[in-house]
Amino acid sequence: MPDKYSRFSELPHQAVDVIVIGSGFAGLAAAIEAAAAGASVIVVEKMLAPGGNSLISDGGIAAPGTVYQLDAGITWDSPELMYRDMITAGEGLNHPQLVKVIAAGAKAAFLWTEEFLGVSYKNRVDIFGGHSVARCHTPESVSGRSLIKKQIEKLTSLGVPLYLGTPVKALVQDERGRVVGIKVADRDGGLRSDHADQTTIHAAKAVIVAAGGFGSDVAFRQAQDPRLDETLMSTNKPSATAEILKECMWIGANPVQLSRIQLGPWASPDEKGFGLGPLFGDYVALPYGVLIDPATGGRFVNELSDRKTLAEAMLRNRHPVIGIADAAGAQTAGWDLQPAVRKGVVKTFASLAELAADYGIDPGALQDSLSRFNHMVIRGEDCDFYKPLLNMAAPIEHPPFYAMRFWPKVHYTMGGIQIDVLARVIHRDQYPIDGLFAAGEVTGGIHGACRLGSCAITECLVMGRIAGQQAARL
Amino acid sequence: MPDKYSRFSELPHQAVDVIVIGSGFAGLAAAIEAAAAGASVIVVEKMLAPGGNSLISDGGIAAPGTVYQLDAGITWDSPELMYRDMITAGEGLNHPQLVKVIAAGAKAAFLWTEEFLGVSYKNRVDIFGGHSVARCHTPESVSGRSLIKKQIEKLTSLGVPLYLGTPVKALVQDERGRVVGIKVADRDGGLRSDHADQTTIHAAKAVIVAAGGFGSDVAFRQAQDPRLDETLMSTNKPSATAEILKECMWIGANPVQLSRIQLGPWASPDEKGFGLGPLFGDYVALPYGVLIDPATGGRFVNELSDRKTLAEAMLRNRHPVIGIADAAGAQTAGWDLQPAVRKGVVKTFASLAELAADYGIDPGALQDSLSRFNHMVIRGEDCDFYKPLLNMAAPIEHPPFYAMRFWPKVHYTMGGIQIDVLARVIHRDQYPIDGLFAAGEVTGGIHGACRLGSCAITECLVMGRIAGQQAARL
Repeated sequence: MPDKYSRFSELPHQAVDVIVIGSGFAGLAAAIEAAAAGASVIVVEKMLAPGGNSLISDGGIAAPGTVYQLDAGITWDSPELMYRDMITAGEGLNHPQLVKVIAAGAKAAFLWTEEFLGVSYKNRVDIFGGHSVARCHTPESVSGRSLIKKQIEKLTSLGVPLYLGTPVKALVQDERGRVVGIKVADRDGGLRSDHADQTTIHAAKAVIVAAGGFGSDVAFRQAQDPRLDETLMSTNKPSATAEILKECMWIGANPVQLSRIQLGPWASPDEKGFGLGPLFGDYVALPYGVLIDPATGGRFVNELSDRKTLAEAMLRNRHPVIGIADAAGAQTAGWDLQPAVRKGVVKTFASLAELAADYGIDPGALQDSLSRFNHMVIRGEDCDFYKPLLNMAAPIEHPPFYAMRFWPKVHYTMGGIQIDVLARVIHRDQYPIDGLFAAGEVTGGIHGACRLGSCAITECLVMGRIAGQQAARL
Repeated sequence: MPDKYSRFSELPHQAVDVIVIGSGFAGLAAAIEAAAAGASVIVVEKMLAPGGNSLISDGGIAAPGTVYQLDAGITWDSPELMYRDMITAGEGLNHPQLVKVIAAGAKAAFLWTEEFLGVSYKNRVDIFGGHSVARCHTPESVSGRSLIKKQIEKLTSLGVPLYLGTPVKALVQDERGRVVGIKVADRDGGLRSDHADQTTIHAAKAVIVAAGGFGSDVAFRQAQDPRLDETLMSTNKPSATAEILKECMWIGANPVQLSRIQLGPWASPDEKGFGLGPLFGDYVALPYGVLIDPATGGRFVNELSDRKTLAEAMLRNRHPVIGIADAAGAQTAGWDLQPAVRKGVVKTFASLAELAADYGIDPGALQDSLSRFNHMVIRGEDCDFYKPLLNMAAPIEHPPFYAMRFWPKVHYTMGGIQIDVLARVIHRDQYPIDGLFAAGEVTGGIHGACRLGSCAITECLVMGRIAGQQAARL
């Protein structure tokens, strides 16, 4: 990361063309495109570090038709298939035109990160629940950090300042309702000048909202889904709160599908936040292993179901379940599980009997379940839960066995402010609000009832870039 | 109905205590309670007739523990069971405290209509999908009209004026955000006085919003659920639109669960609006008959599933399905089906073969399905779809056979503005907005993902009465 960011006291007094709120994937993509198109741009970030929640994601990005897929023998993926997968998981609630834009723009967005920004990807593709094929591309770092770093480098080369510790207090409109700027304060409520207790920065062209989701805003999320109280853990940073979403609502932005809040079903209750568990959970145990209900010793779900289906199946059990993979599965997956093992989130066992004893599972029932599953793997057909077995032809039988407790955590807010295909924010009376664009998790309607894994970064980049391009054109 | 209502030109110039927006079940209940508590009250209604959508409902009201249930041999119903049924159908999204208030207050609300207002009910209780027991009480008129009529009579006796053709254009707040009145115009935009193009009426205590749902507001509903475009029919009046909900959002009311929009699965595509089909669909075919997919001649769902489950099962078929009951079922149900038959919405057939021919169903497959179903009825167990058969022990075999095409129509909007147990409207920052109450379909959070049949009137009365009582206390 660059070690110098712009200081609050340096915020401009003259108008800039475009103000971007938020420095995650979407905000930085928007800022880069707007600046590349010749606009003067600033980025404001409420936290003291850039990147928001994007920084702690694993960086996986869904894109159909890449050479990485061809290398893996996947020749039949397409934007149409990705569109269908997203609509299916979204239960048809997705705004179809937006999904088309995402699916059609996914490959170009991926190539933009690789060729224009210089992010390095592993030569592999992974499949997550609900996708028809493996189409997730993961950076070498296995972290969103590398994309954020490359985006900031590009932004710096374009001369765009990024102001940290600069929370937005309000959007400013002119008398006709056009958004013409923002009011900011420093984090201590301090002033940029001695003129006012809040400081206005004017935007000659547009303000782009890329402020992220509200997964950590307990009061706001609980009003939409009362089950999601403070006892439920979240993979999000504590800063994933709703104040900018609410400010957009204040000036008339239409909130859509706010009650559609995603639980990440591959998280560990034995660590806080996103943690190290999901690498084992999402990349190893679900595709290459099984989920076992410790109360019965049996499987209970297709482990490659979408996140909503999987989380609901777990919640019905009312207690954490155990994800299990063996040495062969872990080797095929090819991920470094040692950090999670050292942290104690993932455990290793020399035998299934030891594993069963540790989690209080009936050892005979567990052995029976795995024998049955292995038999089905050999036959190539999961007759119990119809899990696609194409990519995991190996029975689970080689020690050491890896295991983790799974329990859902609040992960992603599908709902947010309504946008159109040009990333313009839509008023509740269904017209675009002049001068206001939005992209990323703060928006709603793209994923409907359930977002598929690795589609968020795709969305952030596709819609963020569109927002920046459109804002610069005004 | 009283034939004289107050005229727009007679709207008061001095402040009243309480202004109620909307003249459906909830608004009238609120107005009666506020007036009975001694407040000066007015009701404003945008349409030229009172009653809103309430008028065209079938008037069924859910209440546990009534003498009508005891007469029917149902001794084990309770508020707790009704609470559990509502939460189950709502998929746990329901605000639990609100559901408790509804379930606990249901019987008192029912008795209020019967003993205080004088509504006459049929001596029967009906079961709708998702309820554990028969707990729906239907007025003699089989229409919401009788309750509206009695409410208006009571209102008139309390001296409360009801202004028709009086749409609310805005809520008025004082400088501290307290709601202190409304602005109205007449339906032609006309003036009450020559002072302004909009007229303010002041409320010394509170404004109560009971403006109903937005099922007929295509643009607004489609932003939340893009599948619900103008090609989908609605059981609602065209006046079921979102303008007051949006006005509440404008002043900060938190919209919750707006994307949860209910399709009525017992409606006929062969007539507009609510129509006559639901009486056969909901009261006869679903409890006493079967649903048949004409493409296969087979059943495809538990006909007593909740509305969401049922509508989704129908939509998966992608074409209308056929609901069938026989003469014995129709007689047991005991409803007058002749108006629907005369309208051509429900058809009668002398034999199953004739019925099959009319709907293009394979006659052998249809006969097989009914034979299998009848066999299961005799055994008392629906082994295919687990429909509860307790109340319908008769095989379907006695001509004439009654049949109707079923296709879902937009029926009810579960989402709306957030309220608390005192019916106070909650701001998006989670504090009550001073001077503003709400009740009925304009509010959200009570029914979660799916409202059960006959729980809406219960809700309107329980929360409407609370709103009126609380407003009068200010």
